[in-house]
Amino acid sequence: MRASAHSNVNFNDVIKKQKSFVLKKTKAKVKAKAVKGNPEFVVKNKQIGELTKQLYTVGFTATDLAKAYNVIAEMRKANASIWLGFSSSIGSSGLRDYITYLVKHKKIDCIITTASCIEEDIAKCLHDFFIADWFMDDVKLRQKALNRIGNIIVPSTAYVKLERFFVGFLDSLMKSSNVWSASELIKQLGKFMSKLKNHEQSFVYWAYKNNVPVFCPSLTDGSLGDMIYFYKMSKAARKKLHIDIANDIVKLNELAFATKKLGVIAIGGGIAKHHLINAALFRGGADYAVYITTGSMFDGSVSGALPTEAISWGKIKAKAKQRTAFVCADATIALPLLMPAFFE
Amino acid sequence: MRASAHSNVNFNDVIKKQKSFVLKKTKAKVKAKAVKGNPEFVVKNKQIGELTKQLYTVGFTATDLAKAYNVIAEMRKANASIWLGFSSSIGSSGLRDYITYLVKHKKIDCIITTASCIEEDIAKCLHDFFIADWFMDDVKLRQKALNRIGNIIVPSTAYVKLERFFVGFLDSLMKSSNVWSASELIKQLGKFMSKLKNHEQSFVYWAYKNNVPVFCPSLTDGSLGDMIYFYKMSKAARKKLHIDIANDIVKLNELAFATKKLGVIAIGGGIAKHHLINAALFRGGADYAVYITTGSMFDGSVSGALPTEAISWGKIKAKAKQRTAFVCADATIALPLLMPAFFE
Amino acid sequence: MRASAHSNVNFNDVIKKQKSFVLKKTKAKVKAKAVKGNPEFVVKNKQIGELTKQLYTVGFTATDLAKAYNVIAEMRKANASIWLGFSSSIGSSGLRDYITYLVKHKKIDCIITTASCIEEDIAKCLHDFFIADWFMDDVKLRQKALNRIGNIIVPSTAYVKLERFFVGFLDSLMKSSNVWSASELIKQLGKFMSKLKNHEQSFVYWAYKNNVPVFCPSLTDGSLGDMIYFYKMSKAARKKLHIDIANDIVKLNELAFATKKLGVIAIGGGIAKHHLINAALFRGGADYAVYITTGSMFDGSVSGALPTEAISWGKIKAKAKQRTAFVCADATIALPLLMPAFFE
Amino acid sequence: MRASAHSNVNFNDVIKKQKSFVLKKTKAKVKAKAVKGNPEFVVKNKQIGELTKQLYTVGFTATDLAKAYNVIAEMRKANASIWLGFSSSIGSSGLRDYITYLVKHKKIDCIITTASCIEEDIAKCLHDFFIADWFMDDVKLRQKALNRIGNIIVPSTAYVKLERFFVGFLDSLMKSSNVWSASELIKQLGKFMSKLKNHEQSFVYWAYKNNVPVFCPSLTDGSLGDMIYFYKMSKAARKKLHIDIANDIVKLNELAFATKKLGVIAIGGGIAKHHLINAALFRGGADYAVYITTGSMFDGSVSGALPTEAISWGKIKAKAKQRTAFVCADATIALPLLMPAFFE
Repeated sequence: MRASAHSNVNFNDVIKKQKSFVLKKTKAKVKAKAVKGNPEFVVKNKQIGELTKQLYTVGFTATDLAKAYNVIAEMRKANASIWLGFSSSIGSSGLRDYITYLVKHKKIDCIITTASCIEEDIAKCLHDFFIADWFMDDVKLRQKALNRIGNIIVPSTAYVKLERFFVGFLDSLMKSSNVWSASELIKQLGKFMSKLKNHEQSFVYWAYKNNVPVFCPSLTDGSLGDMIYFYKMSKAARKKLHIDIANDIVKLNELAFATKKLGVIAIGGGIAKHHLINAALFRGGADYAVYITTGSMFDGSVSGALPTEAISWGKIKAKAKQRTAFVCADATIALPLLMPAFFE
Repeated sequence: MRASAHSNVNFNDVIKKQKSFVLKKTKAKVKAKAVKGNPEFVVKNKQIGELTKQLYTVGFTATDLAKAYNVIAEMRKANASIWLGFSSSIGSSGLRDYITYLVKHKKIDCIITTASCIEEDIAKCLHDFFIADWFMDDVKLRQKALNRIGNIIVPSTAYVKLERFFVGFLDSLMKSSNVWSASELIKQLGKFMSKLKNHEQSFVYWAYKNNVPVFCPSLTDGSLGDMIYFYKMSKAARKKLHIDIANDIVKLNELAFATKKLGVIAIGGGIAKHHLINAALFRGGADYAVYITTGSMFDGSVSGALPTEAISWGKIKAKAKQRTAFVCADATIALPLLMPAFFE
Repeated sequence: MRASAHSNVNFNDVIKKQKSFVLKKTKAKVKAKAVKGNPEFVVKNKQIGELTKQLYTVGFTATDLAKAYNVIAEMRKANASIWLGFSSSIGSSGLRDYITYLVKHKKIDCIITTASCIEEDIAKCLHDFFIADWFMDDVKLRQKALNRIGNIIVPSTAYVKLERFFVGFLDSLMKSSNVWSASELIKQLGKFMSKLKNHEQSFVYWAYKNNVPVFCPSLTDGSLGDMIYFYKMSKAARKKLHIDIANDIVKLNELAFATKKLGVIAIGGGIAKHHLINAALFRGGADYAVYITTGSMFDGSVSGALPTEAISWGKIKAKAKQRTAFVCADATIALPLLMPAFFE
Repeated sequence: MRASAHSNVNFNDVIKKQKSFVLKKTKAKVKAKAVKGNPEFVVKNKQIGELTKQLYTVGFTATDLAKAYNVIAEMRKANASIWLGFSSSIGSSGLRDYITYLVKHKKIDCIITTASCIEEDIAKCLHDFFIADWFMDDVKLRQKALNRIGNIIVPSTAYVKLERFFVGFLDSLMKSSNVWSASELIKQLGKFMSKLKNHEQSFVYWAYKNNVPVFCPSLTDGSLGDMIYFYKMSKAARKKLHIDIANDIVKLNELAFATKKLGVIAIGGGIAKHHLINAALFRGGADYAVYITTGSMFDGSVSGALPTEAISWGKIKAKAKQRTAFVCADATIALPLLMPAFFE
């Protein structure tokens, strides 16, 4: 490392300074609609599922979407375990409410996601996120402590509240053990969230309630990591907190092996998609697969990779080829249209 | 979970079966060129850096690439710490040799990457990867135990060799401790790799050698996770291996705070990009930033997000706005053209 | 030009050979669903329009889609002229039936499109197109005389029928004049199509019927061009056929100037989008604009350009900024969801 | 059409008003680098071609780029006719200078392009274009009469000068005939441009000089169309100008048939790409094909279509499959790296 900028800085001052960066209170009141989804609407109104099925004959991505619908319906019909992987932006958007709805109604058997999705699930119980614009003055937003995710605004105050909540949670955790696997921690978190007023909006809560394991192989990547950092730095006893990811890979691969039939649904790319299909390898590949992504295949990323690539790895079964679908679309449009397939 | 498929299966049979899925020996000889990069060439031939700078006046992405070149050159001139985040496909491609070259020549001060990049860095010391096609018969590839990553083929035998190597490594690790943070594990791995014939091709080795920390917040996501799983399942004593990610977030944020000036370079999206810029938040934002990605901004993903979005979060400094560059391109073309900027 | 391959070839043989390339009879019977759209369904079932409006709060592209819905509804409410530009693949897909529905119900006041959309509108009256796959053996498809457009198959026989029809049409045209502007030709074509059994499926027919001008500044680019070529080559008298595009630019700019309020909707990119917004410049810019595209902005193409770029040119009014929407999505999903906005 | 906004407007006032929209004088002086390319540099420095060839082993898009290099080199070696199609943004960027260089050095045998590329080729002889930013205040740009194309700025004054030049040109044309095919008009334009000071920078000039036909099936789509409109509206005699596209399709298909071997290179998508490969159909398909595009295949557009799709149509020969390359990249980076292949 090159020379330090802060060689004489007092330790407490460091944390204070860092908290001033990370945990800013929002100075502005946002006048905009809150981010939310209405899954009930798409499930209750049969015409929406009907539309998606009809899109089969329109061609191009519409056909792919209808295929995805059919593959999900087949998963359900075959009573397959349905494993869902989703990336961070899904949790930031109103799709979080769709995920909650699926988990609440026991349509999902296992979740693999990112730290951001966990943390924003809590944060949304504490504070609204808002619909805004893609192109804003980000310098001004920073001054007001408004964080932008695409065309969504998260007031930084949400994270201030999150930290308060999360310290209490970690304290409760450490009463029983210093070492936690990510999935066990998330399960306890779901339980702990019961005390939150809006906990029924949370997929983490419902996953706990309905005994759906939630895996997150990178729990420290995001605000949860920030909170764990501040927590560990605050008292000597808290330093002992460890988050183990080795036990989770055992648990995940065993769960995958135990599935009788397995359908995987990857919404977005990155680690959630990869971790999901990698687990499927441990039972000889998934029987059904749906990918929803905006990723390009031509950079070699797993994000843009088609289901056939996973066949070469044994992550999807060779004979499942006709039971896969690839939808090149933003999930905020695709998932609502696919939702009714889970309730056929 | 829905009913188990394997309720009466003997435990050893499970592992045996799983190894048959994961650790297949390749049956075919691949006749194709091996994946590799030639960073020396682009650095030694000054015309290539000259070309990139000239592209400034061509417009569109060429201009962005030239801007990225200038931002990197500025980082160097200001003697800033340069932190590099890169996603899985970078490691799969010949860009791995570029990363190695940068680390060997002490141009990078900190690395954040994915499990795949670590594992493929080892695997490439043990076996060639090959250039192939985007569209192949993936069912046949599976039969031959050839794994496809875009237009690159990884013979599965590479992973068989990798497992043998990695078991030895984990055994050596557990002699001193059962609990390892990911970054400490990777450092020890770099040291252990010295015994490999081709270790000088490895960026993990050079990172160890040159004392460059390598962070990987999701070390179990990928083949390394597979190996850790098999390792833990093989003997009772090995079950005690734990990989802690909580200490790494402490180490990372402290390192970030200690930087006098910080330049971040994100190649690809996903967790590596997010973890990189999130660390920068803990010192009040990066002073310089270069993003190279094929991601679309319109799905709200961090992968496609522009540097300005990070300004709203305080992850890039507001006043650094003119010292950022966004290159919408596949890194396999962009990085070779940017390489000389590190050696200006 | 480099040396000719056919220096001694007889003229008639040339045409015969070329017809063997262009007008192959399909040897295979395609067993697949025909391409079609069901616009009636989305218009009659109010829940679909309701869904699109609700997507506003979901974030990312869903929000953009809802904004587009609102902008179209505003156009309607303000009684603005609505001009629609759409690129070739729209006509190939089942969206052609949506376009027809809009024109039939007098929701569109002017159309700008490509030659392919015109020709496939006729072709679909003569022969089915079929839903297939993205990845097929294209060499085998050629042997069978099946042409692929993405995941849609057009049996080459459709073009054989098209040619027969089009020769008759051109003969009828040349009875009154040798020189035709593209828009006049298309108008006559709509009239001539009345004799086709399925003419009510055609947007060209309904445009004629409802007096909606259809502009196509590149009428010879595509199968229509092929047919015009064969026509001109067949008899000396037919050589005199000329298609003038200069008069159309006069007509188009005059029409644009005459609009009281103008809303432009560009589906897809390329020439249709550009010609549409360029016309708007001649009345000082559009008052409303909706773009639906998968194009990337970072190659500087008009296809991926945002509405704000058009403001710099005066093609969209500066004060219309809040009455524009940009939807980064495949139109085969987006247009069905937007359709009800035309009928609010 | 809905009611006219201008029913009582005097005809001359209409044109005056329209000219105030279209032909604004730029009020600001732009302080930025002029758009330009330096093809000489990449051709003279052998290391750049060497780099591109070496990229073959890097994987992903780098491999595709090297394949494209090889295919172009093969075209040259086989003495094939090389036909180049390129879309509007290519002409706006500094790649225009690369095109000029290729035409000047007789490396291209036929060009298919858009109206914008023709008009900007003239405009650049009259006025500089400038490098700017992707995200600017487009309302302010309009006030200053600066037109934005991605991150390039075209001062509107360029078009004022263009109009003056073009009126003179059209007058000269009409001395010999009232009806011109697009390709004949462009040829005369190249000749007429000789009088411009900077004419040696123009590909239209060099195409005339070296007898390379330039086809543009949509000559009125863009500023040339604007100029033709104003021209026709200015005097009764000028109304007689007609631009015929029917003769050009005859000429184009005949030229295609006459090629002994044909290599097609499509830079960008849209009409230029389609018209290029459609012509190849008339000689039984191209023998070599290189596509450079950022388009996505999943919207069914020709812009994003792979070469294999063209095989199904007979536009590329079945046996040419291994002599095709698809490069998913912005041409502003790709073309400079491919340039040396033309001079091998």
